[in-house]
Amino acid sequence: MRMDTDYASSVSELLTELASYGAERKGGVTRLLYTQTWSQAQAFLADKMMEAGLEVNFDSVGNLFGRLQGVSPEANVILCGSHVDTVRSGGIYDGAYGIAAALIATRFLKETYGTPRRHIEVVSFCEEEGSRFPLAYWGSGNVVGFHNPELAQSLVDSQDISLKQAMEAAGFGKPDQSAPLRGDLHAFIEVHIEQGITLERTGDRIGIVDTIAGQRRYVITVNGETNHAGTTPMNMRRDALAASAEMIHTLEKVAIRVGEPLVATVGSMKILPDIPNVISGSVQFTLDIRHISETLLTGFCDSVISMIQVIADRRQVEVDITTALRSRPTPMDLVLAGRLERICTDSSISYRRMMSGAGHDAQMFGAVCSTAMLFVPSKDGISHSPEEYTEPEDLQLGVALLTELLYELAYEE
Amino acid sequence: MRMDTDYASSVSELLTELASYGAERKGGVTRLLYTQTWSQAQAFLADKMMEAGLEVNFDSVGNLFGRLQGVSPEANVILCGSHVDTVRSGGIYDGAYGIAAALIATRFLKETYGTPRRHIEVVSFCEEEGSRFPLAYWGSGNVVGFHNPELAQSLVDSQDISLKQAMEAAGFGKPDQSAPLRGDLHAFIEVHIEQGITLERTGDRIGIVDTIAGQRRYVITVNGETNHAGTTPMNMRRDALAASAEMIHTLEKVAIRVGEPLVATVGSMKILPDIPNVISGSVQFTLDIRHISETLLTGFCDSVISMIQVIADRRQVEVDITTALRSRPTPMDLVLAGRLERICTDSSISYRRMMSGAGHDAQMFGAVCSTAMLFVPSKDGISHSPEEYTEPEDLQLGVALLTELLYELAYEE
Repeated sequence: MRMDTDYASSVSELLTELASYGAERKGGVTRLLYTQTWSQAQAFLADKMMEAGLEVNFDSVGNLFGRLQGVSPEANVILCGSHVDTVRSGGIYDGAYGIAAALIATRFLKETYGTPRRHIEVVSFCEEEGSRFPLAYWGSGNVVGFHNPELAQSLVDSQDISLKQAMEAAGFGKPDQSAPLRGDLHAFIEVHIEQGITLERTGDRIGIVDTIAGQRRYVITVNGETNHAGTTPMNMRRDALAASAEMIHTLEKVAIRVGEPLVATVGSMKILPDIPNVISGSVQFTLDIRHISETLLTGFCDSVISMIQVIADRRQVEVDITTALRSRPTPMDLVLAGRLERICTDSSISYRRMMSGAGHDAQMFGAVCSTAMLFVPSKDGISHSPEEYTEPEDLQLGVALLTELLYELAYEE
Repeated sequence: MRMDTDYASSVSELLTELASYGAERKGGVTRLLYTQTWSQAQAFLADKMMEAGLEVNFDSVGNLFGRLQGVSPEANVILCGSHVDTVRSGGIYDGAYGIAAALIATRFLKETYGTPRRHIEVVSFCEEEGSRFPLAYWGSGNVVGFHNPELAQSLVDSQDISLKQAMEAAGFGKPDQSAPLRGDLHAFIEVHIEQGITLERTGDRIGIVDTIAGQRRYVITVNGETNHAGTTPMNMRRDALAASAEMIHTLEKVAIRVGEPLVATVGSMKILPDIPNVISGSVQFTLDIRHISETLLTGFCDSVISMIQVIADRRQVEVDITTALRSRPTPMDLVLAGRLERICTDSSISYRRMMSGAGHDAQMFGAVCSTAMLFVPSKDGISHSPEEYTEPEDLQLGVALLTELLYELAYEE
């Protein structure tokens, strides 16, 4: 392949430097949207882009772009990158790797081949994780017009600071900054750690994503009756926690019966009053369901909601179900995936066509332009954790493959 | 009966006054051990005892006694009362009613019949609920030598203040104060709201307690593996929350099958990391189990622990079970219960012999002296809540019955 190993190996160094912004004593990285460490990380990346000879620009929501201008001004843009924000105490690869890979590949292409035909832009999206505000894809979503900015900006974080306030405090949201919505995109390419164990299990070095799973997230509130744990007979209870336990256990059994690639998870739960000798009056839990087929996803969600309602009725508890997130499965571009497949075959790299169970910025672009997504293995499938790890050789291989694809799209066509 | 209605009706007024110490805007009362409102409430009660002509004394842990000296100095004591502390946002009756009833009955007896043969002491125990420190019966337990004071005093509240520090700050724990342990008790009598729906369902006005249920409280920690909710197949998960849901649901099914009077409750639960799109790595929940038979209670607890272990093994999660509380069923004195029964029958009061599923100060005295416990109805069985309510007529009837029993024990024998 085009890229030499020495060059590609700088990806580890760049990731280590970037991880210093938001680094925690216990090894994790926390870089929440519009915080000081976030601003410092974006400023660091902007410097790196300038060093690489790219034209740097922030849009009005804080997405950072480094542009390598192509020969023809009216040509469309090959956008390539990922998000700079992290979950709380996350790892150093999730998001960051996609930005680092794009920056290194673009710099290499510029230095080796000069001006491309199409424009290439490296992007560091301001936000994807939804860790500070209850909203994900604030970066890429604004680029494709996904969000209702009015609604979104009124959301508040755990300190009651609104997204709008936080954005302005970080220096964004000004009228003279460029609007984030783009109409000039030819393709979007994202490389990312897998965050799963498929590649590790199969021994393949590269995952070429066919589809990003669709997702539904619900918040389910079960209201029963608070009562004394010692004096209320079992058959006189309206125990919100016992009802929730039955719902969660039944849900899991049904999800296992349906089988892969369906996943269903209850990850968060709040109990009221949460006292050992008091029967719970109210429980709220989240439900995250994903599948690559919109039809099967919808069908499963409908049956889960019915099941929850049946259990609630039988137990005489009230249940309220609100939809917190709804994303359709997003197919990646077949032609781009085919190109990646050919590049792997030509270089004898063992790859695997696969789905992504995790959501990614790439899913924002599926309906807007040709989109490709490339995975490298994650050790033990661990992510969103300080223990997130990918071997340097795998990181370098991802950069090399991205370089090939960018070359074909920006220089050859 | 002896007591006149006008006199007994002062119980509502006394409860309302007492409720002003720790009153909250939303109608609840919070009076945690050794806090300022707690001190004010004890001072208020000490004044009321003095007004009634009783000799007032605090012991070194803050239990308040009002003594009506009997004729014979060497006679034993009839102790009568309950606890002054509350749960967070509790009602105005739990504990407080037992103190108010004892005070009114004793004042009436003194004013009407003068000096008794035996001593009568009205007691306001400093603590019963375990709401501030993870320890219950600090008041009555010290009177009977139930606690290990060294261990207990090192316990800390949610602000990391130790019980010893809090006690000293409230003016207790001094060497010149009387030691709480008592060897001079003839009987202990407690009146209390039922905190259940038995009397309301049967239409009886008085409950005479045969047995206070034994109780086990466990803290169960389930450790699985934190992982990404989108990329971890269902069959590769070690989901601590899903495992806990199965345990809780199975426990409930088994408890219902065993039937009354067994009750089993999971009231508190903590989830880590508690994030919607992350599989739970660790869950901790409490388990409260009660029965009036020690044999059946032990047998049920053993089988529940086995069941939890079996589920944990099958799911490859680790489980740790610690015992947080262990109290044996406590039988009340048959002779005293018989006296109460006769008093009810003679006055055509519909009563019911019953168990107490809730724990009470009376259970501390079961092994030390003759103990009796009397219930009045609780509206809808609600307690530990601002909505706790008992009709004034029921409150007065409890006071009148207590007066009869105290008269028989202190004046007639």
